[in-house]
Amino acid sequence: MEQVDKEKIEKIQADRKKSHAYLYEKSPVYRTFVEMEQKTFVDGSLQRVNKELIAIGISIVSNCESCLEWHIKQALDAGATNDQILEAIEVAFEMGIGPTTVASRFALKVLEYHLENPSKR
Amino acid sequence: MEQVDKEKIEKIQADRKKSHAYLYEKSPVYRTFVEMEQKTFVDGSLQRVNKELIAIGISIVSNCESCLEWHIKQALDAGATNDQILEAIEVAFEMGIGPTTVASRFALKVLEYHLENPSKR
Amino acid sequence: MEQVDKEKIEKIQADRKKSHAYLYEKSPVYRTFVEMEQKTFVDGSLQRVNKELIAIGISIVSNCESCLEWHIKQALDAGATNDQILEAIEVAFEMGIGPTTVASRFALKVLEYHLENPSKR
Amino acid sequence: MEQVDKEKIEKIQADRKKSHAYLYEKSPVYRTFVEMEQKTFVDGSLQRVNKELIAIGISIVSNCESCLEWHIKQALDAGATNDQILEAIEVAFEMGIGPTTVASRFALKVLEYHLENPSKR
Amino acid sequence: MEQVDKEKIEKIQADRKKSHAYLYEKSPVYRTFVEMEQKTFVDGSLQRVNKELIAIGISIVSNCESCLEWHIKQALDAGATNDQILEAIEVAFEMGIGPTTVASRFALKVLEYHLENPSKR
Amino acid sequence: MEQVDKEKIEKIQADRKKSHAYLYEKSPVYRTFVEMEQKTFVDGSLQRVNKELIAIGISIVSNCESCLEWHIKQALDAGATNDQILEAIEVAFEMGIGPTTVASRFALKVLEYHLENPSKR
Repeated sequence: MEQVDKEKIEKIQADRKKSHAYLYEKSPVYRTFVEMEQKTFVDGSLQRVNKELIAIGISIVSNCESCLEWHIKQALDAGATNDQILEAIEVAFEMGIGPTTVASRFALKVLEYHLENPSKR
Repeated sequence: MEQVDKEKIEKIQADRKKSHAYLYEKSPVYRTFVEMEQKTFVDGSLQRVNKELIAIGISIVSNCESCLEWHIKQALDAGATNDQILEAIEVAFEMGIGPTTVASRFALKVLEYHLENPSKR
Repeated sequence: MEQVDKEKIEKIQADRKKSHAYLYEKSPVYRTFVEMEQKTFVDGSLQRVNKELIAIGISIVSNCESCLEWHIKQALDAGATNDQILEAIEVAFEMGIGPTTVASRFALKVLEYHLENPSKR
Repeated sequence: MEQVDKEKIEKIQADRKKSHAYLYEKSPVYRTFVEMEQKTFVDGSLQRVNKELIAIGISIVSNCESCLEWHIKQALDAGATNDQILEAIEVAFEMGIGPTTVASRFALKVLEYHLENPSKR
Repeated sequence: MEQVDKEKIEKIQADRKKSHAYLYEKSPVYRTFVEMEQKTFVDGSLQRVNKELIAIGISIVSNCESCLEWHIKQALDAGATNDQILEAIEVAFEMGIGPTTVASRFALKVLEYHLENPSKR
Repeated sequence: MEQVDKEKIEKIQADRKKSHAYLYEKSPVYRTFVEMEQKTFVDGSLQRVNKELIAIGISIVSNCESCLEWHIKQALDAGATNDQILEAIEVAFEMGIGPTTVASRFALKVLEYHLENPSKR
């Protein structure tokens, strides 16, 4: 891979490690978040690997590069394959549109309303 | 159209009118926003109708129902047709996916990185 | 469950059905989106049920009620259990914070910068 | 323009080209998205240039730099002027506030409610 | 205030109470979130009232009505005045635009780039 | 601090200054936004320092690095301490989750609905 991309990924890793140490020491709220994270990604009714794939899908939609770096690593460690990760990304593609189609429903109603009630414009 | 939808639209109109009056009186920041709005939606290099169609596209992506109610009305008043509004909505559908494909590029790099550097996982 | 909640859910179902029929007829972009959706939620390297759980997680983070209505139904049909759906929601809780901790890393650097460079403030 | 900015823009172009080729080969969902994109940005009831200006407005609000890079290029190719693109951006400025004023309406109602019902606090 | 608005607010209160009880029993992740919340909104270097005002500003930008219902109540209980809450909302108005002006900076660079490099279009 | 981080911060500062000058000259909408900004961050019922802390919280949730750079500087100039800024960030952590718990309430109702109405799936 290109050197510049490798450096970007390793800067994200280094930054996360450093700020994690700082926040873990200084912030009781952050420490509780870390505890919450640990309780989330355990095998339960869903296996950890499937939880990590959910986290990858959410990271794509949230456009969170550092989250992607972390959860792709975790997913691979939990046994996810390349193709499974790609399919999680495909779900995120599809879900990018979802909310726009929902909003369009209301737009269509508004359009109908104003065509039926021209005097109220 | 269904009565319940008509009522929802008219509640949005009434709420906007009422809170506009309140904020316009109480908030200098809001008053300046109103001035900014007036300076935005005038005929310029772009005609007002095309500005309203941009606003409709943004309203879909921002999932802002009240914005849709307002800007669809304005677009119709400025001469937009039904089909033009539908095509603005189509642009918004397409743009819902856009950012997910951009985020996926970084995901693919991370995947490549961790497959090339298994010891760093 | 409360009648008002039941009615809300059934209104979402009816609205989706109606606008789907309209958009499917009128919009070639929407028809291609539907095709894209069908290609997404098939058994592949990931089983459909796990794709639906990813979609539930994303729907929570995107705050898309209609998406939740659809994908929870699909997940149940694909064999998801109550507890699995709850765990997908837990992943979404955790991922709500994720991006804020990433943004906070930059905030901490800015803070350090301005404390080290008071003359540049 | 500064060299660093030129390099950033050209990195975005190169990354898009590379990941497009990869996803186009590997992902049927992505291929259908590309088809959807092609059906969106054609002359219809709206001319392509106006669709590209809508896409620019949405890209600003979605904070999608790669989308901006693509759609500004497309808009220029379709005949948009500098000033028209600037006015599309102005619409996006205005629309950044829109949803906050809508949310504030509910905030004002809540405020009124709790002042009228102090015992329910 | 209008009856329909009062009912909406009280439905939000009832829904929150009910789902809180359910999630608190069923979800260890949610329980840790509640603990995190309790650690956040205490008097510290910042007084609780100022933390609640930050939460109101964020709720506006996140368009979270239930968050607004909760944090406005908490802010009032902590001693916030009507005018202070209105000024927190004004900050949120202004911050709605902020990210669009940042994205526009990149748009302007892209525009400059493509005007300087017409052959690359 | 690392040189690369220092350079990133100073590039943000330089970019802001440059595009501010350009937009201030060219865009009446932008000029009105600047006026709106000036009316927002004055001492009022809330002191400026507390408004800047709200802006920091919103910047974290909006993931706006340039906003963070600006408002942290402003907060320090207005007398905020390191610890107060950290506590504003903690509020943003907590508020990242808020909307996901609200969306989960609807998810739980949908789940209940489909378990009670299996024939409607």
